[in-house]
Amino acid sequence: MSAQRRPVVTLLTDYGVLDVFVGVCHGVIAKICPQARVIDITHGVSRQDVRGGAQLLAQSLPFLPVGVHVAVVDPTVGGNRRAVALELVDGRVLIGPDNGLLWPAAEVGGGVQRAAEISCSPWRLQPVSPTFHGRDIFVPVAAHIAAGDPFRQAGEPLDPALLVRLEPARSRVEGGTLVATVSHADRFGNVQLAASAAQLELELGERARVLLPAGETVSARLVRTFSEVSEGEALLFEDSARQLALALNGGSFAGHHAVHAGDELRISRD
Amino acid sequence: MSAQRRPVVTLLTDYGVLDVFVGVCHGVIAKICPQARVIDITHGVSRQDVRGGAQLLAQSLPFLPVGVHVAVVDPTVGGNRRAVALELVDGRVLIGPDNGLLWPAAEVGGGVQRAAEISCSPWRLQPVSPTFHGRDIFVPVAAHIAAGDPFRQAGEPLDPALLVRLEPARSRVEGGTLVATVSHADRFGNVQLAASAAQLELELGERARVLLPAGETVSARLVRTFSEVSEGEALLFEDSARQLALALNGGSFAGHHAVHAGDELRISRD
Amino acid sequence: MSAQRRPVVTLLTDYGVLDVFVGVCHGVIAKICPQARVIDITHGVSRQDVRGGAQLLAQSLPFLPVGVHVAVVDPTVGGNRRAVALELVDGRVLIGPDNGLLWPAAEVGGGVQRAAEISCSPWRLQPVSPTFHGRDIFVPVAAHIAAGDPFRQAGEPLDPALLVRLEPARSRVEGGTLVATVSHADRFGNVQLAASAAQLELELGERARVLLPAGETVSARLVRTFSEVSEGEALLFEDSARQLALALNGGSFAGHHAVHAGDELRISRD
Repeated sequence: MSAQRRPVVTLLTDYGVLDVFVGVCHGVIAKICPQARVIDITHGVSRQDVRGGAQLLAQSLPFLPVGVHVAVVDPTVGGNRRAVALELVDGRVLIGPDNGLLWPAAEVGGGVQRAAEISCSPWRLQPVSPTFHGRDIFVPVAAHIAAGDPFRQAGEPLDPALLVRLEPARSRVEGGTLVATVSHADRFGNVQLAASAAQLELELGERARVLLPAGETVSARLVRTFSEVSEGEALLFEDSARQLALALNGGSFAGHHAVHAGDELRISRD
Repeated sequence: MSAQRRPVVTLLTDYGVLDVFVGVCHGVIAKICPQARVIDITHGVSRQDVRGGAQLLAQSLPFLPVGVHVAVVDPTVGGNRRAVALELVDGRVLIGPDNGLLWPAAEVGGGVQRAAEISCSPWRLQPVSPTFHGRDIFVPVAAHIAAGDPFRQAGEPLDPALLVRLEPARSRVEGGTLVATVSHADRFGNVQLAASAAQLELELGERARVLLPAGETVSARLVRTFSEVSEGEALLFEDSARQLALALNGGSFAGHHAVHAGDELRISRD
Repeated sequence: MSAQRRPVVTLLTDYGVLDVFVGVCHGVIAKICPQARVIDITHGVSRQDVRGGAQLLAQSLPFLPVGVHVAVVDPTVGGNRRAVALELVDGRVLIGPDNGLLWPAAEVGGGVQRAAEISCSPWRLQPVSPTFHGRDIFVPVAAHIAAGDPFRQAGEPLDPALLVRLEPARSRVEGGTLVATVSHADRFGNVQLAASAAQLELELGERARVLLPAGETVSARLVRTFSEVSEGEALLFEDSARQLALALNGGSFAGHHAVHAGDELRISRD
């Protein structure tokens, strides 16, 4: 990190904003590395949704300055999963539990150059709470690295080949039907699929039939943007993360049709 | 923007805090203008409530440093509404969709001195997502202006007379009765009216009868502050934005009486 | 506050994040003390829950840099409660209503060295709204102190012995049964008790019987961390604030058992 630019630490967690978890993490950073700029990517990851958090981190990364990126979605905190710091090929550092959460983002950053097991980092806050490693391990290590302390002092070297990987949800085409998994529903009820628009054998303006898990069928038009369909109509579009997505203009597709992350949808020409 | 003071960028949107939309916008600003201070006015504007967002922006502006103020409540994103940057008489710059959202704030800032159409700004992030102009157009343009890049390079000059205006909700007095529109209900259930306390022909301490849209009548006392009425009692008061407001001491007026933005209330002496 | 380090202002309120209250407070700080770093501890304190806010502030303080700490949970704003600034023995300054909210944090900071009544502070924003002292009194005074203006100019000297105190919730042991009050439920539904793990006459791994207010009994195992019990099982543990706490692994103890702050639970060997 250059001396002229303020170092950047980003946070992505499932802590929510109703408690003091996030504020306390900001405090810990400010004590260790007062010059850091802290960016909250989000603290609204669904509770313990490692896969959802992993996708959001990977999709956000290209829009963030190179920095130290902490992510905490950690259902087995206090168990024997590793806590890790990963130095990526593009110069970013990722910090969090080794449960797959960091894996897709590591790939976006060109892969892992060096890894460290940081559970017993000399920089941790002691006593380490068994339930709040964000405050006591992840954030202090991030703040020290942001402050310029050498990565090799963060913990024990770890072979990157040992890291837990998260296989991305897959989509497939079966006889003209795209079978795709729901990866995320946002607060507007827009439903992101683990598929690209190119996988859909449909021209802009044409209609698709979407078969929902409960057996319901929805007709949706493939368009570029919401204003091309009328109020209350369903649409298929490429979302801002360049993924295929479903929405209800002026409404919540996820809410209206009870669609959730992990559901499999079947999409074919209508 | 002077060289000694950090430039300020403020954000007001209906993005919510559960997704990564806001975090990504912070990231984009930090990459383009690392010296900027970013203030989140709120991301809790009701979904696609242009009028509500416009009022909150205009009411907040006097308490914010002079800066670049981005607002995004944008039901027709990706359609053919303009994207604009407005340089105000008081030195502020407003950036957002040209759907009336910026209009009341522009008036608070003394009116528009220069305007630009920024849909094809050289500073936009390409490819521009048809659904996330906050990330790809509004915030990058704001960050460049905050960084000192000249306003005239932001986009095409636009005649300010062409901007979409938002007429404020009006209130009127009919034979001693104040007829006022609800402009906003806050998280406490306090209901702001598009009216000033001076329009009410009542002395402090006197009671008013409030006729709700559903036909229900509520008795409320005109007071300066909550502690002047008992728990569970309704009050009329001048709120912190100097507008007439209704509340329930220790409860939610909006929730209890099912009152919403846009409702018309009739208030007379009790 | 030293000249080299950026001064720190922290905020803890029950304002929520849906309205512009918090954003406006950030704006006021940035205008008065542009060099300040502002940390939001949380704005999610339950509405008007003075005791809950007081505990969260006191528990967060050790993890925050020394700074000016504003707290606003203020059911009687505009009434005749005092508004105060407290200089603590450890150098921190606390600012807020004198309703007990600041008291536990003051004790964490070594006690009050100097106090001032700031309702008529020369630094307040006029006219002072009777319902938003955060914006008009607390935050401006905090920003001036952060900017290095002398504490003695903040308001009228006040004898610290006159400050409103908040007695902490107590727990007691009755014949082998720990009777403890619920102090807080977090967004995960984990329930913090006003008791320490040491008060529980139980070894790690042993089971306790928890008698809930409605008469229901729950069996919970005393462990160090969630992963030591199976999915859906209740646990007793020392939480990250070093208090005894109850949780449901993979669920919400507070939600499932309808437990609230202030409830008294009886815990004995199972």
